[in-house]
Amino acid sequence: MPLKTSDEFVQSLADLDLQIYLFGDKVEDWVNHPVIRPSINCIAMTYELARQPEYEDLMLATSHLTGEKVNRFTHIHQSTEDLVKKVKMQRLLGQKTGSCFQRCVGMDAINALYSVTYECDEARGTGYHARFKDYVKFLQENDLVADGAMTDPKGDRSLPPHQQADPDMYVHVVERRDDGIVVRGAKAHQTGACNSHEIIVMPTIAMREGDDDFAVSFSCPADAPGVFYIYGRQSCDTRKLEGNELDVGNAQFGGQEALMVFDDVFVPWERVYLCGEVEFAGALVERFAGFHRQSYGGCKSGVGDVLIGAAAVAAEMNGVQKASHIKDKLIEMTHLNETLYSCGVACSAEGSRMPAGNYQIDMLLANVCKQNVTRFPYEIARLAEDIAGGLMVTMPSAQDLADEKIGPIVEKFLAGQCDTPTIDRLRVLRLVENLTLGTAAVGYRTESMHGAGSPQAQRIMIARQSNMDHKKELAKALAGVGKPWDKTAVKKPTATTAG
Amino acid sequence: MPLKTSDEFVQSLADLDLQIYLFGDKVEDWVNHPVIRPSINCIAMTYELARQPEYEDLMLATSHLTGEKVNRFTHIHQSTEDLVKKVKMQRLLGQKTGSCFQRCVGMDAINALYSVTYECDEARGTGYHARFKDYVKFLQENDLVADGAMTDPKGDRSLPPHQQADPDMYVHVVERRDDGIVVRGAKAHQTGACNSHEIIVMPTIAMREGDDDFAVSFSCPADAPGVFYIYGRQSCDTRKLEGNELDVGNAQFGGQEALMVFDDVFVPWERVYLCGEVEFAGALVERFAGFHRQSYGGCKSGVGDVLIGAAAVAAEMNGVQKASHIKDKLIEMTHLNETLYSCGVACSAEGSRMPAGNYQIDMLLANVCKQNVTRFPYEIARLAEDIAGGLMVTMPSAQDLADEKIGPIVEKFLAGQCDTPTIDRLRVLRLVENLTLGTAAVGYRTESMHGAGSPQAQRIMIARQSNMDHKKELAKALAGVGKPWDKTAVKKPTATTAG
Amino acid sequence: MPLKTSDEFVQSLADLDLQIYLFGDKVEDWVNHPVIRPSINCIAMTYELARQPEYEDLMLATSHLTGEKVNRFTHIHQSTEDLVKKVKMQRLLGQKTGSCFQRCVGMDAINALYSVTYECDEARGTGYHARFKDYVKFLQENDLVADGAMTDPKGDRSLPPHQQADPDMYVHVVERRDDGIVVRGAKAHQTGACNSHEIIVMPTIAMREGDDDFAVSFSCPADAPGVFYIYGRQSCDTRKLEGNELDVGNAQFGGQEALMVFDDVFVPWERVYLCGEVEFAGALVERFAGFHRQSYGGCKSGVGDVLIGAAAVAAEMNGVQKASHIKDKLIEMTHLNETLYSCGVACSAEGSRMPAGNYQIDMLLANVCKQNVTRFPYEIARLAEDIAGGLMVTMPSAQDLADEKIGPIVEKFLAGQCDTPTIDRLRVLRLVENLTLGTAAVGYRTESMHGAGSPQAQRIMIARQSNMDHKKELAKALAGVGKPWDKTAVKKPTATTAG
Amino acid sequence: MPLKTSDEFVQSLADLDLQIYLFGDKVEDWVNHPVIRPSINCIAMTYELARQPEYEDLMLATSHLTGEKVNRFTHIHQSTEDLVKKVKMQRLLGQKTGSCFQRCVGMDAINALYSVTYECDEARGTGYHARFKDYVKFLQENDLVADGAMTDPKGDRSLPPHQQADPDMYVHVVERRDDGIVVRGAKAHQTGACNSHEIIVMPTIAMREGDDDFAVSFSCPADAPGVFYIYGRQSCDTRKLEGNELDVGNAQFGGQEALMVFDDVFVPWERVYLCGEVEFAGALVERFAGFHRQSYGGCKSGVGDVLIGAAAVAAEMNGVQKASHIKDKLIEMTHLNETLYSCGVACSAEGSRMPAGNYQIDMLLANVCKQNVTRFPYEIARLAEDIAGGLMVTMPSAQDLADEKIGPIVEKFLAGQCDTPTIDRLRVLRLVENLTLGTAAVGYRTESMHGAGSPQAQRIMIARQSNMDHKKELAKALAGVGKPWDKTAVKKPTATTAG
Repeated sequence: MPLKTSDEFVQSLADLDLQIYLFGDKVEDWVNHPVIRPSINCIAMTYELARQPEYEDLMLATSHLTGEKVNRFTHIHQSTEDLVKKVKMQRLLGQKTGSCFQRCVGMDAINALYSVTYECDEARGTGYHARFKDYVKFLQENDLVADGAMTDPKGDRSLPPHQQADPDMYVHVVERRDDGIVVRGAKAHQTGACNSHEIIVMPTIAMREGDDDFAVSFSCPADAPGVFYIYGRQSCDTRKLEGNELDVGNAQFGGQEALMVFDDVFVPWERVYLCGEVEFAGALVERFAGFHRQSYGGCKSGVGDVLIGAAAVAAEMNGVQKASHIKDKLIEMTHLNETLYSCGVACSAEGSRMPAGNYQIDMLLANVCKQNVTRFPYEIARLAEDIAGGLMVTMPSAQDLADEKIGPIVEKFLAGQCDTPTIDRLRVLRLVENLTLGTAAVGYRTESMHGAGSPQAQRIMIARQSNMDHKKELAKALAGVGKPWDKTAVKKPTATTAG
Repeated sequence: MPLKTSDEFVQSLADLDLQIYLFGDKVEDWVNHPVIRPSINCIAMTYELARQPEYEDLMLATSHLTGEKVNRFTHIHQSTEDLVKKVKMQRLLGQKTGSCFQRCVGMDAINALYSVTYECDEARGTGYHARFKDYVKFLQENDLVADGAMTDPKGDRSLPPHQQADPDMYVHVVERRDDGIVVRGAKAHQTGACNSHEIIVMPTIAMREGDDDFAVSFSCPADAPGVFYIYGRQSCDTRKLEGNELDVGNAQFGGQEALMVFDDVFVPWERVYLCGEVEFAGALVERFAGFHRQSYGGCKSGVGDVLIGAAAVAAEMNGVQKASHIKDKLIEMTHLNETLYSCGVACSAEGSRMPAGNYQIDMLLANVCKQNVTRFPYEIARLAEDIAGGLMVTMPSAQDLADEKIGPIVEKFLAGQCDTPTIDRLRVLRLVENLTLGTAAVGYRTESMHGAGSPQAQRIMIARQSNMDHKKELAKALAGVGKPWDKTAVKKPTATTAG
Repeated sequence: MPLKTSDEFVQSLADLDLQIYLFGDKVEDWVNHPVIRPSINCIAMTYELARQPEYEDLMLATSHLTGEKVNRFTHIHQSTEDLVKKVKMQRLLGQKTGSCFQRCVGMDAINALYSVTYECDEARGTGYHARFKDYVKFLQENDLVADGAMTDPKGDRSLPPHQQADPDMYVHVVERRDDGIVVRGAKAHQTGACNSHEIIVMPTIAMREGDDDFAVSFSCPADAPGVFYIYGRQSCDTRKLEGNELDVGNAQFGGQEALMVFDDVFVPWERVYLCGEVEFAGALVERFAGFHRQSYGGCKSGVGDVLIGAAAVAAEMNGVQKASHIKDKLIEMTHLNETLYSCGVACSAEGSRMPAGNYQIDMLLANVCKQNVTRFPYEIARLAEDIAGGLMVTMPSAQDLADEKIGPIVEKFLAGQCDTPTIDRLRVLRLVENLTLGTAAVGYRTESMHGAGSPQAQRIMIARQSNMDHKKELAKALAGVGKPWDKTAVKKPTATTAG
Repeated sequence: MPLKTSDEFVQSLADLDLQIYLFGDKVEDWVNHPVIRPSINCIAMTYELARQPEYEDLMLATSHLTGEKVNRFTHIHQSTEDLVKKVKMQRLLGQKTGSCFQRCVGMDAINALYSVTYECDEARGTGYHARFKDYVKFLQENDLVADGAMTDPKGDRSLPPHQQADPDMYVHVVERRDDGIVVRGAKAHQTGACNSHEIIVMPTIAMREGDDDFAVSFSCPADAPGVFYIYGRQSCDTRKLEGNELDVGNAQFGGQEALMVFDDVFVPWERVYLCGEVEFAGALVERFAGFHRQSYGGCKSGVGDVLIGAAAVAAEMNGVQKASHIKDKLIEMTHLNETLYSCGVACSAEGSRMPAGNYQIDMLLANVCKQNVTRFPYEIARLAEDIAGGLMVTMPSAQDLADEKIGPIVEKFLAGQCDTPTIDRLRVLRLVENLTLGTAAVGYRTESMHGAGSPQAQRIMIARQSNMDHKKELAKALAGVGKPWDKTAVKKPTATTAG
């Protein structure tokens, strides 16, 4: 079975020569950098759980390519059951990390490319699908992490890629050689870019004639020559430099985003999956987005579980857990969170088989799922802040608590109502802060808003998928639109005499 | 195949001797009474569609008792696939009737009783399950409609049944005979009471020692001696007396509620499914409610489709269909409606096998589903009223439109912006009125609120099912609650000199 | 003091020869018609309260034209205090009638025309203002009710009035004579049309060159030759024909809407207030709408008080008044209702003096007020339905309750948990039904949505009034946009060693 | 005129010897500490604007004690006009600082104490009011900043102060001397504690017999011996240490919270305003909270203006300002923000005169105001994040942008769609981040939630002030509860024959 331990995973990452810039410097021992490490721990958890028998059913799947058990993150979904299990696995990981765990983009990318390469070959006689299957096998057999990279900087949004003043605003082919292509450009907002072995690049919008050089999809090692990363800044990121587990809130896990730059990177043909077939760019975007909008029904409800739990613990430590309004707020948070999960499950259970043989989610319901994700985590966070109380944002620093003179005073005055040590009360409040205002809020709030497409993108898809004509026909039939009207049958309302 | 045509169904109803009171009178030809008939047409539609090949997959199921194809409304769910199909069938019928179609209560009752009678037999050595299976077979083989009757008047809610001043506030056994029992009491808010062949009675709350006479479940023919019905009044009900399809909005279909009275009704033992086993009353209530909360994810989203379609048609006839705010409101309505459907699907797909062999929905998600149903139809209705415009509630009556002198004036001034005849514009607006303020609003709004339990009932179940302890453990683990704290590792934040 | 008693008012109405069509017939004794009378009672209440000393401060004002005390409904606002008192008077009347009381449109019309005629005279040398002041004096001295009529049928909304296929889609001048003008057309959705002495007509949209015949404002007696009314149908309207106070919910009061037709009506010049000055049509619409959007902050919060009270009484009669979720829902309803009232007060308190000397509300806040009115009454209604319980829509008719045989059974089973007679419990539930689904729902819900302009109209005004440029400047100043950036000051985050 | 310049204010602060602890160290040059200084700048702005003629009407008031013009922050409100101007002043300062500007607590404290000391004297013959007037005069004449300190740590919330295991959980008198009292305890969450000249202490809850030592109100200099401060940690606080205006978002202004400790502080009798009169503690809390709940209708709408403006600028720089959904979101943000302002204005305009002669806000509407503040800023923030786009949380640090090698790459790829320099685009996004996730989010979100009392505190007040009995009477009157019912008048609905 090709499964790495989490230690082997970390070592395999360390063996890469990633070019990462953070706070203006190139990071040397990036695997152990305190700002970056929590995001590596998240992915390590996807390895860790895969080796625990109790999670085997969710974390592993049987590859249709090799017949072997593989980590589900490298699996091509073979049934609606697979789709549902994907969501459950994501919820589990959200629960274990309290964070975006970043390995989903690659999974969603391979599943989208799987069907699109097949259909492109069917239509254009290209040979991408076989190539791509080899690549998936390579990922599975080596138990690798792939980053799925989609969002280009886009430049002037009113112009197509090939009319941009600066063509680098979209990743594009700058040279076609016998052995491969050379690409240039950048991908922005790359979740999980600096903890992957491989990068899978896809176009970011539907394309048309003239955009040929931009309709390109390929994969390459994360440390391919010419690839480098500029690490994104998160709220409260430097607390991780303070050696201070307390104020970080969630000391072990965290997300990560980066600007990924392709400075004339060479890609051999066997790693190219689209190159000029402009009419397939749109399908690829839509399918990747569809899978990723499903994903959020899983991962965000998992993180939601942590936040609900943290609010419940905070309420207990504040001694207010029995107040009816507190109980009701926890119910509301649970209700909203399970609604997200329901949408994730529903678009999976309603999935369907593609011509390539793999399974795809229901596109309408996946967009509905994500649209809810752009709303409910914000309300859950608001309720968590309500329950946690103001101390969450007014309490002194860990440095104060650690101080010999000031520490005992802080401890005395911030003791909660129960027997809990003050430090534990503060830990839980810092976890709530982390999820609502701090580093994890980037994943739980802003990523919920914009990840897998901003809210308006889902609304456009919902409109397109809503089959409004059918609904109009239903209404017309019941209203009797177009039927002859028998005026002579109309009677005048009146009432008989009393009794 | 034991399937009636819709005409045969209506005839079979007409053969019953139901005792129905409406507006203070006993109704004679009740099957053809204009106030009642639309509710019969709804159920007739469940027969009609069952015979159309295109809907066979949803409308029919293979009985696990007889191996025959039966109407799904009489089926015991054998898989999660069955559960999902139930929801889809309900959405279909909501679309076709634009109304509560009333046959679900019986389906949900037999599925709840199926597992509860089994477990009661296991625990108490009673013989209810075999009996009940015979009864289900009887329903299936004769393709009958059963009403599931649960809600008692309840009297003083702070007292258990056996301590009520008037014991009739809960249906109860007044006599135990060799051949059967005699029951007395009433069931309120009975949806679909006056268009069923059979009545299935269940207790309405969890019970305890002393409530033995009240812990009773049985079935009887709808026209059993001693059973009578007092028909509930709906908003705009008497418009149906005006021979006036226009102002009714939905001339063909409608819902129905009645107060069902049991005035010393005899029930033979073979139709008794619980009698004194107080500890099973609670499970029966919970499971029936669970199934019924799932149901609303189907039927209400079907009715929602009609309302969305009606709003879209109204917008076109008003000439405003291209306004961005109109399009956006239709998207929002669709989004909310599909969220309801997603919850219906999710609690079905996550269903599980009971000891009796049948399948039950996921209890947490079914309650989440219904909780959303207590909210979103109201917002969908509000948006429909927004799109429809004020004319919906200010336009003259059909009698004015039919009048020789006034009619042409109404027609002239109420013409919409397009080529649509005025009458069709008014028809669509009356359909919106019907669903938001009229007879169908009782089903689409108030029943969404209170049917299958009022909102607070779901919140209690959500709290109970939320596994909050697990969530608290997740949060504590990530926050590091209880871990020793290494104060010495704490560093002070600072910044190096520029550059 | 020129104040009529309510009886004198009713008699003065009866003296008019209104041409009203209802259910296809011309209504003869319209003042006593059971469908129409409740709306007359509402206006009668504006006379009744004006003579009660305790309400004098709100109901009366000192005319700036005559120095006499007049009914505030005929007053031109002279201060922000007047504007606030207007809102309070409206809340009082909403409380007393539980209904739209319909006299506001005339008050808002005279206040809008007062400043517009002044400004038109200033700009164009016309003589409207003096004329109009005479008219206001006439209304005040005779204590009359005026209807303010604005909304034309509009026909094809993409075309201006003078390009309509049928010019009658907008009220317009068909003949200019020495002694006056002849007008033709119709006004739709006319609240309070059939219980006014006078009609004040205004254009419904901003106009431009070519629309001269349509830019017309005038007044005429409600029974001027050529004026007739087609009465609008409301949800549950015919219950009022059943001699049945119970099922009506609110037996005494109700709203009213009509299609008002002008079939070549002659208007003498002294009653013409705009005629061809197209550039003033827009201001007139905006100011009337502004005053009317303010009005809703008063009247709807008054009706909201009734609905909140009804829900509270229903909860008591159901025996659930102490449940924490019930209490919390009543708080939420109160909170939303008082937010509406706050907005009504705020746009009044922030009003300002016009060149004509009268006071006008703050336009931005009045639109904000109305926008909230398109939302909160729906949520208040939803919560009321939640608290009331399903019985509200499933209970038998008054005819059943009055029946000798069935009545006692209904009474027995529908008794609440307390000592309240069943009839009183049902009365309160019918009042909730009346406000949420019945005749009063037309006023409380649909009129809240569309009266004084549909929601999108307010959004356009909010955008126009929001002074977004100022907000952008604030943000740019704080963000430092355009400032030179001193890169050399940037330091790298780090942390000193522990402790 | 006793008005300091902003420089004089800063100097006067620097002259104090405040004992402030931050990150475990006592801060020496605290007035110039980069973490603290922005909060001092906020208060400096209250001095700055007070000397600008264009703001004189809002910023200054005429003291009723001295007849001199004083800064409104030191004024006792003499009319509802004063109350409204207070709200406008707060909105202005929110706009200018984009932050909590912290001087309101003192203003609200003196206005609450003014009437309570008067009433206490009346009831108990104490001499607090004259003393307190002297103190107000002292503040006015020296143009001082006072902090209003209310919230105690509270310990076990189920016990009254005098039964706490540790009496220090509430500030209390430990010694009564001839010349004054000695107090001990702490106040938590103190907004603006470390930029005030004076501290005004009030009790935090209603008290009863036995709590005599805890029912204490007094003032003292901010640097009185025994007073010290532990500075609260805010999200992203240490970015201010990076010499890096860009990543801070709002480089100049910010809020501040601290734990304020009273370690046996001596207070002379002339600065004591309550000492043992337990029955006045509740009124003091309620009035202070009332004034402070009003305040939020002003300040938060001012900060909201900044956030709306920032979102609008970000949209322009992203090139999406013309998209209809963007425009609609800006309208929604404006609508919500103006609703908050309306509530602030309304509770002011509806204020009333107290026996002491000063004016107090309407208590119901002030609580409604604050309740909305616990909701709408969160939704405004959510919409701002939607409009801003994901770049707000994924963009590289200022250190990267400042780097010679990486900087130009960041600049190239993060250029917006317009001619705006990249740096300005990033500045605006960092401002949005600051307000939604960063230091200012503590004020705009969490303080909106918990400042002036958590949401449930307002709900309790709304319930108490709602006059529900009056509402119930209104409903009963309209429903006809208790009226005799004339069954004989009931008619049966029917319909005449057609036509």
